[in-house]
Amino acid sequence: MISAIQAKLGELHGWLLPHDDDYLNEYLPAANERLAHVTGFTGSAGIALVTQEALHIWVDGRYRVQVRSQVPAGTQIHHLVEEPIGDYFSALPQGARIGFDSFCVSARQLAAWQEAAPQVEFVHQANLVDALWEGRPALPHSPGFALPVAITGRSCQDKRQALGQAFAARADWALLAQPDSLGWLTNLRGGDVPRLPVLLMRGLLHKDGRLKLFVDQARLPAEAELGDGVEVLAPDTLHYELAALKGQKVLVDEALTPAALALALKDAGAVIVKGLEPTLVPKACKNAEELAGMREAHLRDGAAVSQFLCWLDAIVAKGQRPDESTLADKLESFRLAQADYLEPSFDTISAAGANAALPHYNFRNGAPAPLPQDGLYLVDSGGQYPLGTTDVTRTLAIGQVTAEQKRLFTLVLKGHIALGSARFVKGTCGHQLDLLARAPLWAQGYDYDHGTGHGVGQCLSVHEGPQRIGKAANNHPLLPGMVLSNEPGYYREGAFGIRVENLVVVSERQAEGDRPVYGFDNLTFIPMDRRLLDLSLLSEEEKGWWNRYHGEVLEKIGPRLEGESLAWLETACAPL
Amino acid sequence: MISAIQAKLGELHGWLLPHDDDYLNEYLPAANERLAHVTGFTGSAGIALVTQEALHIWVDGRYRVQVRSQVPAGTQIHHLVEEPIGDYFSALPQGARIGFDSFCVSARQLAAWQEAAPQVEFVHQANLVDALWEGRPALPHSPGFALPVAITGRSCQDKRQALGQAFAARADWALLAQPDSLGWLTNLRGGDVPRLPVLLMRGLLHKDGRLKLFVDQARLPAEAELGDGVEVLAPDTLHYELAALKGQKVLVDEALTPAALALALKDAGAVIVKGLEPTLVPKACKNAEELAGMREAHLRDGAAVSQFLCWLDAIVAKGQRPDESTLADKLESFRLAQADYLEPSFDTISAAGANAALPHYNFRNGAPAPLPQDGLYLVDSGGQYPLGTTDVTRTLAIGQVTAEQKRLFTLVLKGHIALGSARFVKGTCGHQLDLLARAPLWAQGYDYDHGTGHGVGQCLSVHEGPQRIGKAANNHPLLPGMVLSNEPGYYREGAFGIRVENLVVVSERQAEGDRPVYGFDNLTFIPMDRRLLDLSLLSEEEKGWWNRYHGEVLEKIGPRLEGESLAWLETACAPL
Repeated sequence: MISAIQAKLGELHGWLLPHDDDYLNEYLPAANERLAHVTGFTGSAGIALVTQEALHIWVDGRYRVQVRSQVPAGTQIHHLVEEPIGDYFSALPQGARIGFDSFCVSARQLAAWQEAAPQVEFVHQANLVDALWEGRPALPHSPGFALPVAITGRSCQDKRQALGQAFAARADWALLAQPDSLGWLTNLRGGDVPRLPVLLMRGLLHKDGRLKLFVDQARLPAEAELGDGVEVLAPDTLHYELAALKGQKVLVDEALTPAALALALKDAGAVIVKGLEPTLVPKACKNAEELAGMREAHLRDGAAVSQFLCWLDAIVAKGQRPDESTLADKLESFRLAQADYLEPSFDTISAAGANAALPHYNFRNGAPAPLPQDGLYLVDSGGQYPLGTTDVTRTLAIGQVTAEQKRLFTLVLKGHIALGSARFVKGTCGHQLDLLARAPLWAQGYDYDHGTGHGVGQCLSVHEGPQRIGKAANNHPLLPGMVLSNEPGYYREGAFGIRVENLVVVSERQAEGDRPVYGFDNLTFIPMDRRLLDLSLLSEEEKGWWNRYHGEVLEKIGPRLEGESLAWLETACAPL
Repeated sequence: MISAIQAKLGELHGWLLPHDDDYLNEYLPAANERLAHVTGFTGSAGIALVTQEALHIWVDGRYRVQVRSQVPAGTQIHHLVEEPIGDYFSALPQGARIGFDSFCVSARQLAAWQEAAPQVEFVHQANLVDALWEGRPALPHSPGFALPVAITGRSCQDKRQALGQAFAARADWALLAQPDSLGWLTNLRGGDVPRLPVLLMRGLLHKDGRLKLFVDQARLPAEAELGDGVEVLAPDTLHYELAALKGQKVLVDEALTPAALALALKDAGAVIVKGLEPTLVPKACKNAEELAGMREAHLRDGAAVSQFLCWLDAIVAKGQRPDESTLADKLESFRLAQADYLEPSFDTISAAGANAALPHYNFRNGAPAPLPQDGLYLVDSGGQYPLGTTDVTRTLAIGQVTAEQKRLFTLVLKGHIALGSARFVKGTCGHQLDLLARAPLWAQGYDYDHGTGHGVGQCLSVHEGPQRIGKAANNHPLLPGMVLSNEPGYYREGAFGIRVENLVVVSERQAEGDRPVYGFDNLTFIPMDRRLLDLSLLSEEEKGWWNRYHGEVLEKIGPRLEGESLAWLETACAPL
């Protein structure tokens, strides 16, 4: 495949091959797994360049180890952040030509490369890979299904009108290029992409609330309630509609919009108004009905994961040490027994012993390891339900654990408790709170190289913006109803990995002062492993948090379990 | 003056008048106080625009109240952040022309305006104000003085060579446009600008360590030790030197470089390499000798401020309530008695009662208020010494204070203690720590609308980059030797203001973990006011911090006081 691309390069210095497809999503349908098809690399982010001489690939720190075992011998591997591809471009000679599919690169990314390397010509072409890919899977065409207003809390018409009013002063139209934005806006879901329950559609929303929705009409379910003013158009007519926007002001979020669409608007003579995609903040701030659904989904999920943890303790006690794949399958079987369960919200990270030191370990990339005789097991998993999306990590003691493992688990837990207990004023952004989750580790000279919290959708993406808790600046204030993960960790290469993750929702708090105060309420109710505690490191307040949390777990999950599982839960949730 | 400018506008829509002069500094020589001369506004930041019809002025939140009383009636006042001048420009018609002095605007600022308003022509002209300003003060021409290597720790030659090596892979030359950068590099100081002990000079540093230094040779002191390879050139020859850099790669920090100089390089055919000004980080990271000097300067300053606080307690007890100006003069008299004291490091903020609710209150802008019979007094002041620069705020009880004032002082103090006690891993940036200073206030619904910590120079600017602690992102990691302020506060409009400020230095800490751990050591040793404590809000750890800190104050400052002052200090520093 690589030599076939090289044979087609002609005058091009190279062909650019991002992980992203034309929806710029983390999750892709099989037909768009171009990077994996060409290079073998199956990570969720990365970019390759096929030149006349070589295959180059850029991946981030998470995939340093994995990429080496997946790409062909001789591939030049670069660090996505430390040796950015922009540096490679800027070192190219004057007039060098790079071919690429401008649907698979955001307008912002292209602009950044053009600024870094003004001497390079980026040549938009039909996708070379698609032309060469024999046996490429069909593009998805799943049937859509509608979520009732009882779940979404708002009709499509209501959302469209509110959104249009919100941007009317700045623009005539908003280009909505992301399927999950349209899923939220239309209350429609689908099965086009594994792990992300959407239909791959785009939209043009007018300031008066009218919507041009680009999707095959046949895929819309009979029960869809789109309201007045929605025109359903064939997906391939989008470029005609964009070409007709001459002189119109069009709101474009350059980070979320393929360069091809932004360029089409420019060519059409539309005035591009740069700004945040208008669905992002309303989608992130769950309303009362959405939150009620998220809570119920977490209780179902909590019952399933608790059953798994009970089963795990029992078989470990019998001396069994199944492998990571068997464990993930067993966990999935408990979720499948829950009402309305759709699918995992991401590929389960089932990581035994040293494998857990890779925060994004995937047992599917090699031979699944068995549980250690003595050590730690980390399981990070989640489910999609029509009512909501879940994501939880528990770290578990298998056999005997060391005093050091307990100490580090307890430091991670202290950070989790501190962030979960935070009180902060209106206007606070995620980067301002990140320290809380790290401070107990930092004090002893430890840290973790990933973010602390990502947004989560309601039966949508498990990684949703715009809010985020991490070291890097994120200028979107945390608002009531936003759902985030709280997931500090610690990773020791070649030895073990620890992560403690709940989902939480931003909620109002009572306070006497001048400003509104917010905090986090837990959505996840699943026991943590008390066998990993070093009680000497916990303050009385922290022990109180543990006991209150586990009291709530028992109260909420207990009624959903029976027999052995219920007995296990009662023991797991007993006060310290 | 405004009508005289309007008469000269010709085809211009308006003449732009920034606070900044051609060194882009916070502090200006009298000859460059153009904004104040034209508009009357004396704040330390702001920008005006004189159009055919009106005077517009943009100022930030600190100056909302002050600006109204200073500018002519009818002036259109805008908020610098919420209604940025870029929005004004972007609303102008196609072809509108804005005249400005391109020395008084940074290259980055000009680029941002040009991006916001591509239809506007920004016309570089000789400064209109200078041509019309009758009786303009002379430009400064103070004699320079040299700091010995015993104070600076490194020779000019050593610094030049290390800096040149650090940027040699990226550029041939670095343009140094800031006087304090050259002050640090040459170990020279001067008196050109009030509060900032520099000579107004610029430099071109070659990668091999050679320096072209643009300053009148006659101003250099006999004891200057610049080393080999320094060419002293008349300031007005800079543009010839820039014009000769065709094809050379020149490192330019666009935020710190006047647009005029960046444009001169571009016109000359030089290749501009954008990057951080190379002196910034080495200047910020004080070496052992600089730190020893900073510490000694703080002990002298601590003795002076302690004498003032002793005096203040005594006269308040006698029922006297002097005004803010008298108090600032008295404080200055104690500093003047210290060895080698040069001048204040900024205009003393001496704020009685409700005036302290303005964080940057300046009693010189109106009638100084007397101390309240009962209430709070806030004094924020600092000194320049050849050994170092100081900056400290103390909030003091005058007569009786309320339980609420004590509660809020104690919440502010808790934040100050938490930040001062922080332990953080190598790589941490200031925005990651800001929360520590705010969390106790946030929990009760309070906050303050300013940063928490700024860098401080060594006998240089009291506001020095690149590090900063605040809500906004700052991507410069905190490194050992960096000096910062730690200054949370609370302000209640029309009532009172509270701030607790020490200077601290980043220092290494012992830890067992994987990564280097840093913390802060105090530089400031001056008692805080125990009469403002609400002891019920302090934990045992916090009381321990207070007692240890005041024990150190007594140990370090006690030997520098005698008689009544020493007795006062012993009482003020007694354990809780």
